[in-house]
Order: sequence, then C-alpha cells, then structure tokens
Amino acid sequence: MTMDGQKKPTDPGPAPATGPAWPVTDRTREALAVSLRGCEELLVESDWLAKLARSEATGAPLRIKLGLDPTAPDLHLGHTVVLNKMRQLQDRGHRVIFLIGDFTAMIGDPSGRNTTRPPLTREQIEQNAQTYFDQASLVLDRARTEIRYNSEWSDPLGARGMIQLAAKYTLARMMERDDFTRRFRAGVPISVHELLYPLMQGYDSVALKSDIELGGTDQKFNLLVGRELQREYGQEPQCILTMPLLEGLDGVEKMSKSKNNYVGITEAPESMFGKLMSISDELMWRYYELLSFRSLAQIAQLRAECAAGRNPRDAKVLLAQEIVERFHSRAAADEALAAFEARFRHGALPENIPEVVLRGAPMPIAQLLKQAQLAPSTTEANRNIEQGGVRVDGERVGDKGLKLPAGTYVVQVGKRRFARVTLEASA
Amino acid sequence: MTMDGQKKPTDPGPAPATGPAWPVTDRTREALAVSLRGCEELLVESDWLAKLARSEATGAPLRIKLGLDPTAPDLHLGHTVVLNKMRQLQDRGHRVIFLIGDFTAMIGDPSGRNTTRPPLTREQIEQNAQTYFDQASLVLDRARTEIRYNSEWSDPLGARGMIQLAAKYTLARMMERDDFTRRFRAGVPISVHELLYPLMQGYDSVALKSDIELGGTDQKFNLLVGRELQREYGQEPQCILTMPLLEGLDGVEKMSKSKNNYVGITEAPESMFGKLMSISDELMWRYYELLSFRSLAQIAQLRAECAAGRNPRDAKVLLAQEIVERFHSRAAADEALAAFEARFRHGALPENIPEVVLRGAPMPIAQLLKQAQLAPSTTEANRNIEQGGVRVDGERVGDKGLKLPAGTYVVQVGKRRFARVTLEASA
Repeated sequence: MTMDGQKKPTDPGPAPATGPAWPVTDRTREALAVSLRGCEELLVESDWLAKLARSEATGAPLRIKLGLDPTAPDLHLGHTVVLNKMRQLQDRGHRVIFLIGDFTAMIGDPSGRNTTRPPLTREQIEQNAQTYFDQASLVLDRARTEIRYNSEWSDPLGARGMIQLAAKYTLARMMERDDFTRRFRAGVPISVHELLYPLMQGYDSVALKSDIELGGTDQKFNLLVGRELQREYGQEPQCILTMPLLEGLDGVEKMSKSKNNYVGITEAPESMFGKLMSISDELMWRYYELLSFRSLAQIAQLRAECAAGRNPRDAKVLLAQEIVERFHSRAAADEALAAFEARFRHGALPENIPEVVLRGAPMPIAQLLKQAQLAPSTTEANRNIEQGGVRVDGERVGDKGLKLPAGTYVVQVGKRRFARVTLEASA
Repeated sequence: MTMDGQKKPTDPGPAPATGPAWPVTDRTREALAVSLRGCEELLVESDWLAKLARSEATGAPLRIKLGLDPTAPDLHLGHTVVLNKMRQLQDRGHRVIFLIGDFTAMIGDPSGRNTTRPPLTREQIEQNAQTYFDQASLVLDRARTEIRYNSEWSDPLGARGMIQLAAKYTLARMMERDDFTRRFRAGVPISVHELLYPLMQGYDSVALKSDIELGGTDQKFNLLVGRELQREYGQEPQCILTMPLLEGLDGVEKMSKSKNNYVGITEAPESMFGKLMSISDELMWRYYELLSFRSLAQIAQLRAECAAGRNPRDAKVLLAQEIVERFHSRAAADEALAAFEARFRHGALPENIPEVVLRGAPMPIAQLLKQAQLAPSTTEANRNIEQGGVRVDGERVGDKGLKLPAGTYVVQVGKRRFARVTLEASA
C-alpha cells in the first residue's frame, strides 16, 4: 500500500536495460549528479546511468528500495540522510518503496541471547511502521511512496523456499562480509541463521524488482547480495547506493542517541534550532551536503559568500531554519530563531541581528517598527503593541503613543523579529 | 504408519533418563554387547546403557532412528549392515523408525548443478520407499518398524522455523564437519543451503524423539547434530551408533555398485551364493560379524573349529546359506549350494565333499545312499532315484537295481548332497 494506505499491485518493473542503449541527456546526467551528491558509493554507476536514461525515455519510474527494521521508530537527522536522497530521486519522478522487515522482526532474536530484540507482534510492527512513516513523510513525497512488508513473500517461501534460496549463495561469498570474517577469525560465534538474513534481505529485492537499494555504508554487503540474487533469479540487478553515516553535533562521532549528539526529528523547534546553531562551521557544510535540499549551486554560492567575509552564522541560520521548517513549519522556524536570539540577549546578543539606521527622531514606535521592517504596516505594528509583542531593549512597550528619541535600541517584535535600530534626528 | 500401512501416533518417548538410575542387569549388559557388535562407535555408551536399563525396567521400547534418502532403492549387503543392527535391537523389543527424507528429496539439488539429483515427486518417493521397505523387511521385523516422512514436520516449520532452527547452531560448529572444513580450505564452494541439511536431519530426531540414531561412519557429524539439537529443544539427547562401511567382495574397497564388488539383496540365489563363496577367509569373519545373525558365541566356536583344522569352506558355506536364506528361502539356499558344487564338479571338485568309506561291495545303490547318509532310508533313496536325483560320478542313475563294485565314486543326491564314497569288498 502507499503511505496513504491504498493497496497497490506490485509494479512489474521496467523492461531490462539490456536492450538498445537509451540516450543519455543532460537531464540524465543531472539525475546522476543528484544521485551522487554526498553519497559514499554508487554501484554500478554506468548501470544506474542506463536505468536513469531508460526511465527518462520511457517515463517508467525507477523503484528505489529502502529496507527498514520496524523496531526503532524514533528518527534523528542521521536517519534522514537516506530519506533525503530518496526525496531527491522522488522529485525526479521515481518511486520509493519502504520495505518493512516484519518477517524477521516477528522472529526477534531466535537465539534468545539478545533480550533487547524481543519478537514483535503484527500490531507493534504496524504501529512502529506508522510512527516511522509519520516521521519519514516529513521528508518524502507520500504520493510516490509505497509501503511493503516482507512477510508478504518471505512466509510463502516456506522451509523449502529457504533452502532453495540458500542454495543460491556460497559460504565463501557470505564470509566476505567484514564482520563475519572478523568474528569467525576471532572465534566469536556466528549463528547459522545469521547467514540467512542477508539472503532474506536480498530476496526482498527480487520480490520488489528494485532498481536501486539505499542503505548506510555498513549495509553495503547486504545490498550487494540483493544485486547478485536478482541476477540469479534472472532479473536486471539493482544498483546500490550507500550513504555515509552522519556525524553528530560534536562533528566526531556518528550521530546517535546513545552518544547524545543527535537532533531528533520530532524534537521541539527551539531545541532543534539551538542544536544546529551549535555545530562547527566545517560540520555545517557537511550538513548542507547531506541534509539540505538547496541545490549544489546554491550551496556553492553561500560558501563563496562566506569565504568572501559573510558571517558563517548566516549560513547556519539558513540551514537551521530549513531543517526546522521541514519538520515543523516556517513559522516555527522563525520563532525558533527569535527564541534563540532572545536567549542570547541576556549575555551575548546574537551576532546576526540586522543593523538598521533610521532618521526622524523622535519617532512614534509604530512608525519605527514599520521602517525597520519589523512590521508590514503601522496598523500591524499597533496590533503587535496591543498584543504585548513589542520590546525595546528588552522592555515590553505598553503605550502605542510612545515616541523614541535619537539613540540605538534593540527592537524586538514577537519572538523572532529583531533589529538593532540606530535612530537619528531628522536631517 | 507401520510397514503394514497402519497409522500410528507419534510415540511420546520414554521418560527422561535423568531420574533415578535404573538397575543394570545381565540382560542390559547383553543388550549393550549386541549394540556394540561390529560397530564403529557408540556415543555415549553410558547414556545408552542407562536407556537400555530404563527400557528394560519400564518395558517402554527405545526409538531407533534410521534416516533414508529415498532415491536409491536397490540395496546391497553393505546397506544391510545397519539394518542388521536394527533387527538385533528389534529382537530385544525396541522400535525402528524409518525416516524418509522426502522433504529434501522433493527439493532435489536446489543449486541445479547436480543433474543426478533431480527433484522427486511424492509418487516417486513413495514408490522408492516401498521398494526400500520391501527389501529392508527381509531383514527387519515389520511389526516393530514404523515409517515416517520428514516433510510431516519440515514443511510446517516454514521459513521462520528454518531461521529459528538455524539459530540453534553456530557456523564454527558446523565447520567441524570434515568435508566442510576440507572444502572451505581448498576453496571448493559450499552452498549455504548445505549448512541447513544437517540441521534439518537433526530436527528429525527432535520431531521423532529418537533414543538412538544409526548411520554409516560418514554420517557421524550429522548424527551428532541431532543429539545436540535435541538438547537445545529440551529433550534427552539421542545416542549415536555408527556402523562401518562394509568391504566389498575384493576385501579392499567399500562395497558399492560402481566398484562391482557387491552382492545385491535381490540378486538370484545362485549368484549371491557364488559371490559369497568367493571371498577370502579373512573377509568371511568380517562378514560374520556384520552380516550374520549367529551369536558371537556361535561364531567364536566356528572360528575355533577352523583354527583346529576344519576347512574354512564349511564356515563360508554356512554364511552363504544363511544370507541366501534371509533374502530368499532355505530351499533356495540349498539349491544354490548344490548348483555351486555342481559347477565345481566339472573342473575342481569342491574341497568339502565328505569322505565316506563303506564295506560290502558289490552294494545296491539305495543301500549305499543310506549308508553314506545321503538318504535317510533306502525307501527315500529309491524315491530319489526314481525322481532322477541321483548321480554317480556325474551320471544320472536310472536303474534302482544297480549294484556298485568296489571303487571310489562321487555320489550326489539332489543338488546339494555329496559324498566321495570309497566302497570296499566285505571283510
């Protein structure tokens, strides 16, 4: 079903790319650049270019698979790195398939050793999946997103199908997975069922006829199994696209809850904003690459401005606002900025309060607010005053008749709009 | 179902042997000796002794499992080595379970590489199984034999059950199997599904609650998996009893069709008899141990006689006759012996024709047959003559009035009774 809950038949998938080569247009190359942005690895690039070219020529969307373990529904920005990539591909017409690994989740840890992985019920899984989608749909285009549960084809495999599937892969190839090799050499037990999981995951790609599978770098081996199994089953093999794990706010460790260096996507706007403002300039550019939807050209422009002397804090505010807006709203982003700056008033004022110079002291407060562009009109300015939303140097203005003499004031409207106004006498 | 086709519920199995120790009687020790006769290995002997003691005390039969691949229904004597052991245990009251591996047989070789292992249909499997039982029941006690098909519990396992089963065993333990280690080291591919087969076989033991599993030496690893899985599933672990692979007629290679050193159990009596008479004396004693149902005491006696000068050919005839009788009949065994000896008359006479010295020439032929103990009475002797069953020096005797003068004659009655008669004049 789609994220809207509608049932969809399995897409039969595009025709094999083994026919005549489709023309590679500028648009195809652009799509490739979008795919490559920030990625760790794209395999095989030429295959992917051919798929993109075919899709463009035929209008048939490509099928983008993301496998999900329905056990950890509380997302942070690190999780959105792959979602962002998917959204970028959706924006080019392609189709995202969320593949919920309910089959293995319902098994839990069959060895019984790992008590942190109890078997989940169908209800828990669907609830977790729903929580996940509610969060993921803040990034994704719901209309181009499909949700599938792998028990749909894994259970019907049966014991025989499992054996037939396992026959398609050799132990030697399985042992190429880094952690298997390492554990085997170190004498750390590997249960036989652990060898089956990559095969089940790969079989999902067969069942879904996926064109590309996304995952973290740590998933590369499993993604490749899918590619190879599709070939074994006579399908055009999927490409694989691995995204790096996002650094946390410290810029050193990977973002994770346990390191407390994360930004949760359901976190309150002010908290989200504040955390993002705290990162280093270097990490900010990294976050631009992986978390922003600004084009690479726009980011390059911003970078050039900062190199030429613009305060990097401006760029950081833009990033923080973009992200707060994505997960909350534009208004929440503005308020978060205001709150952030307000906090800084008692201590160091935020560096990026706009400087405004006005002439015509003494000036009525409503007029000042309008001229400093803190209100669109004096009428609106007066309403702000009536609502108690206007402060001058931190003190609330109660009197609409107030006239300010010449001087410099920090003027604030609502929680978010600030200006440092220098009011001069009329010429 | 039993071999008679009757449905039987699964025996719940005996109570665990972990309770109070049951008394070990002489009869228990005798049963242990029967179990050990000719075996390669019995693991764990003390467990088996405890099971035997319990069974004797409670009257609950033990469950003896033999796994069978329903693809090769044409048995030779090598295959009967384990059947013989089972029969010996049946004769002590225990129950044999023929476990037909139809689950994997219906899969065939899932890699598709081994064209000699095509998937079998249910009909083919049942036909093969029937052929097998028809042959095996020449050795076994049908009333104490049960037939089970492992698809009964393997299919319901499902894909999830397979994963749960695979979780009970580590890769490291699986790699202890000789051929896996060898192939892995040599870079010879091992398909992942090959790791599942020992587990499926072991799960059969769990499903059957078997007390002991029999197999060839080459099966030891798989038998041990069953033992360990039973423990994992909270059952009393089965014992394992491996029997050696029988040497073929050459006494060097293992008996096999491809080496053409075998005796098929459906082979014609004369062929069977002749082949067994051709083996070396040394191999004969080996065959006594593994193929004869004579007691160890009887065999020791026979051996002592031969050591004291008795012609080993006598012992060979006894063995050949026992085996021909088992797979055909007593009459067929007698005829085979006679035919065998008849063949030898034209050329080298068999060495073991009894020498008889009689006095009273000229002597009527019926009298001579009686005195040489070739007929119980002259009446019977005359009947033999009338039926054309008496030869003197290879020539048929037609005249009951024939009187033989002094001399030495090879006298034959029927196909089997011979004597070399030296007839002397009366004293």
